[in-house]
Amino acid sequence: MREVAVIGVGMHPFGKFPEKNLKELALPAILGAVKDANIGLKEIEAAYIGNSYAGVITGQESIRGQTITRYCGLDGIAVVNVENACASATTALREAYIAVAAGVYDVALAVGVEKLFCGDTARSIKALASGADIELTANTGFQFTGVYAMKANDYMRKYGATAEDFARVVVKNSRNSSNNSYAQFRKPLSVEEVVNSRKICDPLTLYMCSSMADGAAAAIICSLPKARQYTTKPVFIRGSQLRSGMYQDPEKEPKSTVAITSAEAYQKAGLGPSNIDFIEVHDAAAPAEFDHCEDMGFCAKGTAYKLIKEGRFDVTGALPVNPSGGLIGRGHPVGATGLAQTAEIVWQLRGEACGRQIIKDGQPPKVGLALNTGGRADDDRAAIGVHIYQR
Amino acid sequence: MREVAVIGVGMHPFGKFPEKNLKELALPAILGAVKDANIGLKEIEAAYIGNSYAGVITGQESIRGQTITRYCGLDGIAVVNVENACASATTALREAYIAVAAGVYDVALAVGVEKLFCGDTARSIKALASGADIELTANTGFQFTGVYAMKANDYMRKYGATAEDFARVVVKNSRNSSNNSYAQFRKPLSVEEVVNSRKICDPLTLYMCSSMADGAAAAIICSLPKARQYTTKPVFIRGSQLRSGMYQDPEKEPKSTVAITSAEAYQKAGLGPSNIDFIEVHDAAAPAEFDHCEDMGFCAKGTAYKLIKEGRFDVTGALPVNPSGGLIGRGHPVGATGLAQTAEIVWQLRGEACGRQIIKDGQPPKVGLALNTGGRADDDRAAIGVHIYQR
Repeated sequence: MREVAVIGVGMHPFGKFPEKNLKELALPAILGAVKDANIGLKEIEAAYIGNSYAGVITGQESIRGQTITRYCGLDGIAVVNVENACASATTALREAYIAVAAGVYDVALAVGVEKLFCGDTARSIKALASGADIELTANTGFQFTGVYAMKANDYMRKYGATAEDFARVVVKNSRNSSNNSYAQFRKPLSVEEVVNSRKICDPLTLYMCSSMADGAAAAIICSLPKARQYTTKPVFIRGSQLRSGMYQDPEKEPKSTVAITSAEAYQKAGLGPSNIDFIEVHDAAAPAEFDHCEDMGFCAKGTAYKLIKEGRFDVTGALPVNPSGGLIGRGHPVGATGLAQTAEIVWQLRGEACGRQIIKDGQPPKVGLALNTGGRADDDRAAIGVHIYQR
Repeated sequence: MREVAVIGVGMHPFGKFPEKNLKELALPAILGAVKDANIGLKEIEAAYIGNSYAGVITGQESIRGQTITRYCGLDGIAVVNVENACASATTALREAYIAVAAGVYDVALAVGVEKLFCGDTARSIKALASGADIELTANTGFQFTGVYAMKANDYMRKYGATAEDFARVVVKNSRNSSNNSYAQFRKPLSVEEVVNSRKICDPLTLYMCSSMADGAAAAIICSLPKARQYTTKPVFIRGSQLRSGMYQDPEKEPKSTVAITSAEAYQKAGLGPSNIDFIEVHDAAAPAEFDHCEDMGFCAKGTAYKLIKEGRFDVTGALPVNPSGGLIGRGHPVGATGLAQTAEIVWQLRGEACGRQIIKDGQPPKVGLALNTGGRADDDRAAIGVHIYQR
């Protein structure tokens, strides 16, 4: 496989944009990535478009990507529409990465775009529920928040964490997103504000849960040495892994699928947790951030809630987590989130993250990791994607 | 890129199965392909699942593939959900092919599955219309049959073809599908029956149009030399190309996107029309078969309707076209069709096509091509996939 780099990223701000359709959300992200990559539209050979819910939200199935590429003036190229719930954009990125690494294309576009505010909240919730099996769980009243709450209760029981500890994730992430002009939520929150916000599903309060959003993010994926023609700051994709969840016997306490997937990504990259300077993870609910840090080997099980108190996961800490603000702060337009993680990592590695820039030994960081999970199949996540980036 | 072969194929019969859901349609196709490949389920590392309309038909968005893989006992593997209207299965096949060729996986599963009979015809039609841009054309009353009828009228005007000529495609394809146990339509039709069937959109009659169907098809894609461990009859993928439609000025009569895409597939395969023994093409409406044969260089523009009278495209002819019965005879469960083409080509190349087996110089054919097109973006097809297979 060939070496592959991200040479440009772009975003449409995440938030509530009821007047915009999918095309209008995707356009600035795509043109932003193209401009950032210093390429022309004509150099894009293929587009991988991640979107999770347009079929239910707007009725546009089948060719959602082509409606977007045509709107952007990209005709004739290969277009592949991919879905994987909250991991749709990461799946688009991975498919683009594989095709470029294989030598099928030199320049490919990966896009994640989602529109959730459609003026019909019931329809939005129906769409979100279809991230689980509608014949087994979704139509029985299943809600993702409930699953996260059960896991949070389990974490509290096992390790002694409290709601205040989960609130600290929100405090950190809202502080980070207050410095991110693409973020949906720009107001820094206090522990008291988080804990006292409306209860959603015990122990989770409103501010501990990621919210509905519209938005888009895009990246230009390029082979080497071609990437060197366009940029002096390529960001290499060193490891990429994708798995669906697997059956696990909790009595035997095996490694979680997140642990297995990240271990495989480390092996592909030839890098481990100690080599990674910062991470973007899938904080769909605040407690998940602790699980992710622990499952991926950045700290021992049951310790993340203690380490956050010491500032370990702050932008200025030893392992910044979600410098973008994460899903809770930046927002979570489901099918766009994975590529927003990519954008944040690229900006951080290039030293362009403005008020939230990570500095290590006087320099921008060298290696970042993104974990994006999506949906639910039976007893585990439906998709888990891990990517490791290096400048 | 590594050499890649199809080592097993399977199908669920195409037809009307109102009592079955997506999982129940996909299961026999997947298990059939696994058995045919002589592998165990545990050897499958990734699944690429093509489906076009479940979001609208059943409400299952986002993770449709995972609901299927879990039902089949395939947990933990990478699952990628892809869509490209009528070319969804071909897109799944191509993504699996690229990943195996790149070295990411040794054994990948490609699946196409569709459920159109949902007990609510209006919903099925709404789903089918979403193969075009719902903001530009689909919701204005656009129907694919209308587009095919306009093209047919143009062909008649330019070259002097008649409705009887188009009917001959149906006569041939219904004869072929009468020998295909997976086909939706098993009754051979006469020119008179086709011409006198209900008028749908002049000059197209009912029997000239592909119909609604449920169904599934699957293939196991494997790297070499691993494929040799499982089978003595690998079918190699020699060329694969995918494009979306492009703007074309009809005054300048440029090459069609089908012509461009097939020319690129020929180049990748190092094979041209003269090396290809038979083809499966996208006869969503009968006249399209003529266009496809001509655009891909198997005969000159405006001549296919004359050559069919001589039996050129029969199973016993110089260039058998749609020996399976094509979309008109075998049926067209949208997101499954591309992999049914793959299955037919594999069976023909291995000499296992029973009553419709092509024989050349006393042997099964050596090279087959599949053309699968999908949807509509502005003025052209949304997706065009061409694959060339060799035994």
